[in-house]
Parts: sequence; structure tokens; C-alpha cells
Amino acid sequence: MAMNNRRVVLARRPQGMVSPDDFRLEEAAIPAPGDGEALVRVIYLTLDPYMRGMMSEGDSYADAVPVGGLMVGGTVGEVLESRDPSLQPGDIVEVYGGWQSHVVAPAAAMRKVDPALAPISTALGVLGMPGLTAYFGTLHVGQPRAGETFFVSAASGAVGAVAGQIARIAGARVVGCAGSDEKVAYCLEECGFDACFNYRTCGDIGAAMAAACPDGIDVYFENVGGEIGWNAFWLLNEHGRMAVCGTISNYNALAPETIEDPMWRFITRRLKVEGFLVTDFEADADKARGELAGWLAAGRIAWRETMVDGLENAPVAFGRLFEGSNFGKLIVKVGEEPGPQR
Amino acid sequence: MAMNNRRVVLARRPQGMVSPDDFRLEEAAIPAPGDGEALVRVIYLTLDPYMRGMMSEGDSYADAVPVGGLMVGGTVGEVLESRDPSLQPGDIVEVYGGWQSHVVAPAAAMRKVDPALAPISTALGVLGMPGLTAYFGTLHVGQPRAGETFFVSAASGAVGAVAGQIARIAGARVVGCAGSDEKVAYCLEECGFDACFNYRTCGDIGAAMAAACPDGIDVYFENVGGEIGWNAFWLLNEHGRMAVCGTISNYNALAPETIEDPMWRFITRRLKVEGFLVTDFEADADKARGELAGWLAAGRIAWRETMVDGLENAPVAFGRLFEGSNFGKLIVKVGEEPGPQR
Repeated sequence: MAMNNRRVVLARRPQGMVSPDDFRLEEAAIPAPGDGEALVRVIYLTLDPYMRGMMSEGDSYADAVPVGGLMVGGTVGEVLESRDPSLQPGDIVEVYGGWQSHVVAPAAAMRKVDPALAPISTALGVLGMPGLTAYFGTLHVGQPRAGETFFVSAASGAVGAVAGQIARIAGARVVGCAGSDEKVAYCLEECGFDACFNYRTCGDIGAAMAAACPDGIDVYFENVGGEIGWNAFWLLNEHGRMAVCGTISNYNALAPETIEDPMWRFITRRLKVEGFLVTDFEADADKARGELAGWLAAGRIAWRETMVDGLENAPVAFGRLFEGSNFGKLIVKVGEEPGPQR
Repeated sequence: MAMNNRRVVLARRPQGMVSPDDFRLEEAAIPAPGDGEALVRVIYLTLDPYMRGMMSEGDSYADAVPVGGLMVGGTVGEVLESRDPSLQPGDIVEVYGGWQSHVVAPAAAMRKVDPALAPISTALGVLGMPGLTAYFGTLHVGQPRAGETFFVSAASGAVGAVAGQIARIAGARVVGCAGSDEKVAYCLEECGFDACFNYRTCGDIGAAMAAACPDGIDVYFENVGGEIGWNAFWLLNEHGRMAVCGTISNYNALAPETIEDPMWRFITRRLKVEGFLVTDFEADADKARGELAGWLAAGRIAWRETMVDGLENAPVAFGRLFEGSNFGKLIVKVGEEPGPQR
């Protein structure tokens, strides 16, 4: 049976909140791999907030996806055909393959995933980009010390929950906020946070944050920006640090917001605010992934996925990242995992 | 002849721009030093922008001066009487003595100044707190590398001019802005800046800054805040750093300003913004002062003072710091230097 490659392209640039109509599902022939390349059947596609930035032109750290172009994204899949000695058919690999069912890419751009280590979808979550983002943002940028208060927003998210648990392992008092009581319970009961509040129902966010952080905040892991982010900034203690990972509350905004000028506070509290990208730490990725896998194996880090079935449902699912209705790592199941008998 | 101690106290808390009427000159008996203390006749008093913050209650890094209390500040003077073996009459010392003609303080809080090294007033400027502030903010916080663009505001000031020259020694391309053509000429001709512009006459500040920094800004040494400070922030390159030393444009403000929310930019450019105080680096102060003295002796750092005669003129002179009519380190001559024949 001659199969086609199914792919989701950017149909148009979003205006404000992203919509399923901003995407289009297409079919095309599956290309053949050239020398040094492999053909991969995608099993899992990860959906992450940063993709919203790449749908628009303007201020970002990466070029925008062109209109009509394939949506980018991390994938895990099975090698069907390899023209490189490093990969064999049946190998499971992680590759930045995009929103499509089949990927042809250089073998050098693929990373073999060991299915014995953990479910292979974790290569897109706790053992993948979000987990590494949490690792580097927490340990290399924020650097919480034992006894310090570590606050994280989007605390049940793919990055936030791991960041909080790494900070807990580092000995910090870990506090978070999340958008539902179920998420708050997850942070408290499964992730071992010391405190967590529901920012949608708490009333005054600054007051709720101050109540949850009676000793102030020493390290803030910023995932959301906006009101939550700046409230956390003003609660930072002397020598407080802020690891700026994302500002999801702004990603669909049509115009910048205004805030109270914070510059003087940098001096009075000797604050350090630092933005980072996981790609800046690539040299240390293997070491970090090994440490995360060790914590996972030891049961020291909990993680959660929401699985959406079918590539065609990716556009609708993507919008949930910005509504807060997603829980944990959002993964699209594009194809079946290989059977256990292989 | 029984002399009195003349002292300037805070008469009232300023409302907005500081005024000479916010101060009061008083006379009191000169106290006698106790065990371990010394009596110092003040020769020079330094006036610095940070003192404005200590005249008001609220968000600062130090307690406010109480109404009726002695204005604080760094001084250099001559020991008249010592009840500590480490000091002898005639010694020249630096001490945080305040706005007064005579100081009694523990000898342990006094630092001997070598009059052979440089004019003793430099212990309050290029070899004192402002010079050390420039040193640590530039080399420990901003960390300019050879070939990078280093931008500094208040570029002819006691801190800014030294910061720029240290960055130049580190191999950076050094650009500044200042508030008069005379100050701009000083930065270019005496301090060796690569470019400098007059922010009062340049028209659009962002455009002038971009023109002076065609490769963007890698390190911004922030002395002024407000429009200049945020324009520099938005010009920071990837992995740009901002050493936040002061925000003098805000010090007399009655209400905070609002700005465009900058948080997303921290990520897209991987920026680091860090506030600092010279007092955080006290452990390294002697080493830094030694290096500064070496550069001074080698003629690698230019410095400039504005000398005001008489303690009674300190209140009027202090206001000049915020009008921009002061040039270089502002020093009040409170007493005569010892004669050369001693």
C-alpha cells in the first residue's frame, strides 16, 4: 500500500488567540531518504507553547514558520529505512520532525531513544526538551539553595512540574500556582510541592502569592509573564533570581502590556533576572538527561501526559495550551507504538 | 579656642525634587573619642546620588535618615586625636563620617589613605566608593569582552567615566551619553570613549543610541533609568547584560513610571539584568583599589572633580547632581588640607 505523508502546515498568521483555522492538513508523497538520512514513521508529536511564537513574525529567538510551511516540533518515531550506518529499521528516535506522519532527516539530527528506560513519549517530555528546560533553568540559571523559597508558575505544566521537583531535590521550599484545583492537588500530592494555589480562584494574586511565600521568593521560575510574573518579581528577596523561561500569557496578545518600571528594585534587592533557552545548554544535555532519568527511575520525579489521538486533532489541541485546559505534557499520538512482540 | 562641630541634618523629607530647605546647618560640641575611637577633622565630604534615596522612607537598600538626623556620607579627614594604637594624629583617613566638620568613630571603621598615592580627595572618587562601584559593576557584573559594545549612561559622572574607561581597558568598544557638549568632549577626548552623544540635544534618544551603537549593546552600565535606560535595554544584543547601578532619573519622582513589559525580550535575547551595590563586594575592595591605583599611576584612567567650598554650601550643591549641572565627582571642601611642611 502506497502511503502518503500527512502534514499540518501554517495556513495563515494568527491574529491574537491562535485558532484551528490557522492550520491546514495536507497530504504529500513520502520522500525517500538520501545518503546519511533516515525515514521515520512518527509515533508521538509534542505540542509546546513556544510554537505560538514561531507562527508570527516579529520578536522571537527563531525564524517564523512561513505561511504554507510545515509546523515545527519535536517528534518520536520508528526508523523505517536508514541510509546511515548509525540507525537501523526498528530503532526508536527523537527528531525535530514537525507536525507530520513521516520524517526524512539526517541521521545525525536523530537521537536514539532507549524504550527500556521509560515510555518513549517521555523523550518529548520529562526526558526531552521540557525536562531539560526545567533542569537548566532551575539548576544553572535560578540555582536554588537549601532552605530558599522557589516559586514556579504553570506549576503542573510539562516544564513547571519538573522545575519544582528539581528545586525540591535541591532542598528548596517549593511553591507554585496553577489554573485548577486538580492541578493544584497534583502539585501538592504527586510532585511534593510545599504549597500551591489556584490563580483563577484565589482572588488577589499578589496576596495569595505572598501568603504562600511568607519568607518571600528567592528564585522565581517564570513560565507565564503578565500579572503572575510581575507579582512574583516584586516578592523577590535580596539577591533573588528569576529564570525567565516563558511568558505564555503574552503569546496571543496583539499589543504589549505596560507595567510599573521595576529598575530601581533591581538595586534595592540586588536582583538578577535572566532569560534562557534550553538550546543554549546543548553541551550539557546528555549529562542532564542522565540525571533526570536517574531521578525518574528512583521515583523522585512525577510526570504527567495528556495524549491526543490523531495528527488531525493537533490544531484544536494546540489551543488548549493557552486556555489552561491542558494538563501536563501535551502529546499527539500520530501512529502506533511497535508491538511488544517485535 | 573651643571649636564646635558643624553638621548638616535632614530638616524634613523632600517632596519630589530635593531642595536646600530640606537641610539644616547646626552646631554642637565636638565629642571626645572613647577607647578604640578617633577624632577626625573632616577635609572633604563627597556628595552622591544615592543619598537622595536615604532622605525618603520607602523602598531602598538602607534605612532612611531620620528627620533631624545627620546626613550620611563618605569623608576624608585628618586624625586630631586617637585612642586606638592603629591611628596617630596627622594620619589621613577615609571614614563614613557624614555631613559634618568633625567625626568621632571607631578606628576600625577608618581606612588610612596614603597622600603619596594620589590627591587625598580621590579616596572619595576614583579610588573610593564611586571608583569601586564602576570597577565591580563593570568587571564582576557586566563583564565586557574584547570587541563587545559597552554602553554607559551618565558617562562623564564619577561612576560612569571610570566604568567606561575600565571597559575600554578590557577591550570593549565604549559608548556613552552625557548631558552637555562639554561632558561629551571630556568622554571622547580625555576618557578615550569611542563614541558619546548629548542626550539633551540629540533629538530621539533611541535613534541616537542606535546610531552610536551600530552593532547593538552587549553590556549596558545603568546609571540613570527612565527613557535612556529602557532604550538601552531594547538595544541589548543576544546574551546582553545590564549592570544596574543607579536610576538617578527616578530619584526625585513622586510616582513610579510605566513602561512596556520587557519580559519576553529576556528570552528572545537571553538577557541578564542584575542590580548590584558596591558594598556586596567588600571582600575584594582592597584588590580592586590597588588595580585602580595602578591604572591611575599609569595614566590609563582620567578623572575629574568639582570642588565646592564650605560645608554650608553642601545642600545647594547636592541638588546639582539631579540637574546635571555637576561635572565629575562632586566634593565639598569642609576643611583645609594639612600644609606641606608638616
